[in-house]
Amino acid sequence: MGEAFGLYKMGDDAGLMPLIDVANVACGFHGSDFNHMRTTVQLARKHGVKVGAHPSLPDLQGFGRREMKMGRDELTNCIIYQVGALKGFLEAEGMTLNHIKPHGSLYGMAARMEEVAQAVADAADVFKVPLMGMINTFHEKVYTARGHKFIAEFYADLDYRDDGSLIITREHEAKDPAHAAALCLRAIREGKVRGVGGGDVTVRADAICVHSDTPNAVAIAQAVRDAVKPYIDAA
Amino acid sequence: MGEAFGLYKMGDDAGLMPLIDVANVACGFHGSDFNHMRTTVQLARKHGVKVGAHPSLPDLQGFGRREMKMGRDELTNCIIYQVGALKGFLEAEGMTLNHIKPHGSLYGMAARMEEVAQAVADAADVFKVPLMGMINTFHEKVYTARGHKFIAEFYADLDYRDDGSLIITREHEAKDPAHAAALCLRAIREGKVRGVGGGDVTVRADAICVHSDTPNAVAIAQAVRDAVKPYIDAA
Amino acid sequence: MGEAFGLYKMGDDAGLMPLIDVANVACGFHGSDFNHMRTTVQLARKHGVKVGAHPSLPDLQGFGRREMKMGRDELTNCIIYQVGALKGFLEAEGMTLNHIKPHGSLYGMAARMEEVAQAVADAADVFKVPLMGMINTFHEKVYTARGHKFIAEFYADLDYRDDGSLIITREHEAKDPAHAAALCLRAIREGKVRGVGGGDVTVRADAICVHSDTPNAVAIAQAVRDAVKPYIDAA
Amino acid sequence: MGEAFGLYKMGDDAGLMPLIDVANVACGFHGSDFNHMRTTVQLARKHGVKVGAHPSLPDLQGFGRREMKMGRDELTNCIIYQVGALKGFLEAEGMTLNHIKPHGSLYGMAARMEEVAQAVADAADVFKVPLMGMINTFHEKVYTARGHKFIAEFYADLDYRDDGSLIITREHEAKDPAHAAALCLRAIREGKVRGVGGGDVTVRADAICVHSDTPNAVAIAQAVRDAVKPYIDAA
Repeated sequence: MGEAFGLYKMGDDAGLMPLIDVANVACGFHGSDFNHMRTTVQLARKHGVKVGAHPSLPDLQGFGRREMKMGRDELTNCIIYQVGALKGFLEAEGMTLNHIKPHGSLYGMAARMEEVAQAVADAADVFKVPLMGMINTFHEKVYTARGHKFIAEFYADLDYRDDGSLIITREHEAKDPAHAAALCLRAIREGKVRGVGGGDVTVRADAICVHSDTPNAVAIAQAVRDAVKPYIDAA
Repeated sequence: MGEAFGLYKMGDDAGLMPLIDVANVACGFHGSDFNHMRTTVQLARKHGVKVGAHPSLPDLQGFGRREMKMGRDELTNCIIYQVGALKGFLEAEGMTLNHIKPHGSLYGMAARMEEVAQAVADAADVFKVPLMGMINTFHEKVYTARGHKFIAEFYADLDYRDDGSLIITREHEAKDPAHAAALCLRAIREGKVRGVGGGDVTVRADAICVHSDTPNAVAIAQAVRDAVKPYIDAA
Repeated sequence: MGEAFGLYKMGDDAGLMPLIDVANVACGFHGSDFNHMRTTVQLARKHGVKVGAHPSLPDLQGFGRREMKMGRDELTNCIIYQVGALKGFLEAEGMTLNHIKPHGSLYGMAARMEEVAQAVADAADVFKVPLMGMINTFHEKVYTARGHKFIAEFYADLDYRDDGSLIITREHEAKDPAHAAALCLRAIREGKVRGVGGGDVTVRADAICVHSDTPNAVAIAQAVRDAVKPYIDAA
Repeated sequence: MGEAFGLYKMGDDAGLMPLIDVANVACGFHGSDFNHMRTTVQLARKHGVKVGAHPSLPDLQGFGRREMKMGRDELTNCIIYQVGALKGFLEAEGMTLNHIKPHGSLYGMAARMEEVAQAVADAADVFKVPLMGMINTFHEKVYTARGHKFIAEFYADLDYRDDGSLIITREHEAKDPAHAAALCLRAIREGKVRGVGGGDVTVRADAICVHSDTPNAVAIAQAVRDAVKPYIDAA
């Protein structure tokens, strides 16, 4: 959420915010800027939505979706800077930080490369908040080994490879809302999703992610919310 | 302090840090980046130096010394972002934020334009820390009217106009250390400094500023510290 | 035109390009990036549209619509850099540079401040192309005194103050296409436009500008083109 | 050369320029900005030094020495933008572009990855100038296959691996000038350099590179120039 930049729009945050419980808010390195961070945090407060930090590689032009080679300390510092900045806006609105979830290529790299997951955990040590990620990757392995609370995410609007990794494209495509909702229900009930190669992948859905820059994100979020409501209420 | 950027050096922070009690640490908008912020905060902790935030207009190429027209809310958000980011690094090192002091043109504009001083005070409201500035400007007027603790600064290495305003150049020149020390003593004892036009200007020196990017900053800081030591000890 | 940035969209360039003869193409400092510059120049070539450079103050977040204090040499260098970059893409597509028209605050400052207009003319000296601007401002005065060909613009989608200056807002509003077309006809026939204060302002319309980021830019451009077609054909 | 940025210094260009025949001038993406590009080109003209473009990945903080994953078209556009910008300053000084030599990680990636070398060649097609690089890499293979004039470089101040690849560090270390000069003589006479693993690597030295950000670059350049002067005179 909050991925607009200057005069540039991105995503229908006003439409999405009433449909979610937790928002991953951009911190200015792949999208957003200090003005949009302020208004996004205010919008979250208005709707009682919890805010997590969504730090990225420093790559505004590439929307954080181009991989960059950075060292572990450098990555940790990069994350601390962004999360700290977001906490400033949370402090301004009397809110607290809920969790950290790296964005884009930083997320994908942390799933695949232990060193990057360690850098993320180093940053989380500073802020003492849970980390979001995918099971059966270095997310789960490193974060839990380091003693961080781990929130497993299921992606309603992205495809999975059969090896369980996520296909992160530079731009997202619209998805059929009903189909997305069905995927989420299966993820919750069976802990499975069909990979693009036809095999089943094991997933867990402590949280369900809908990208605000997916063209029909509001429709997807609405359909998913309606479908999974019994599980939210039961939780 | 901490105004290096990437591979670019700026100032002899290792030489200065042992000579000071309080550092204004750059937040990445006029100088510094997430790596230099981390190491600067670590250096301050090592020497028992208190850290204030030194936020700037968003202008790395101009080192925050080019004026930009920004609205009050936008300025406040700009400052919150930077101060929050710095607080992330303070949190990482178990330190707290001591104060906020705007940098360069943001500082000069806040002295001269009430709207800008209000924006600075709006940001300080979030973090509940003192503000540094110059007496007889909107710094003092607005910050004290808003109930912020106000730390009056005297500049050991910059010239004053006869109207009391500071001459902020894009690059600083070396100054004679002994002369700088004498100016500081007079500022403390008499509350006066000679303006460039020949008239005396009223000043107050709760704190004395030496810019880390002044070419002979370490020599100036050493001379000033030696000269004013009795006043520090008495405080 | 070409003011998209990374994944961020701005304006319906594909819709506008067939309706215009000359495009002012962003150079990456207020909008656009090297990828969008390439595709915009290619789109212009496809539609036989001439390309002018649209350089800006270095302010992507502010879309070049925040004033910055920069010296004359610095402004000239800033413009040369951007125009040179655009010429690289023109060279790639076998096209030549048609003119230079500063963007946003740089345009407004050049209208009002002789020093800035001189800086623009200094850059135009390098590329030996005409300059676009408004009559009865330092645009016309300086550019013509320096011997540059001057193309007078009329704005179909912005309001004028009674002193003849343009009201440059950070975001543009939709305008009634028929009204915009009528304004253009009057500008051509009478050389007049009504200012917001009620007085008539003298204008000249060698060229008519429709901003691609005005929400209904395509409808305005179509209406204007239909209305002024006889004058284009006669030219 | 010309790798200073804003107030930040980098390298002793004034000391180096009299000692060289050809300069690779930074284009603002890893170092430099529009002001330093202007003064660097002016300095080159004053000393009769030919100017090549030294484009980089878009990474000012990492000085272009962090690898980024970018597509072929994107890389080509990135290079065209920078080379075009530099040509603007050359045009301002009545000079022409001598060649293109990618910087840092872009250079290293082009040596190792055919796709990147193709992107560099695509950009060179636009400007129709020679390309600089290393023999026995994709530089030589792709550039010559594409019909570009290829200038083989030998590095006086960097170490080679035994496989012939260059060790590109984020910061360069001082080197013994006499040793550097001896390496250059051997490279010219025998076409060999000792790799860090002890084996000999085949090299060719149509040009010899000394990095302006190597701490004692002027001393190295002087020693190398003195040593290889007979070969320059004979050429």
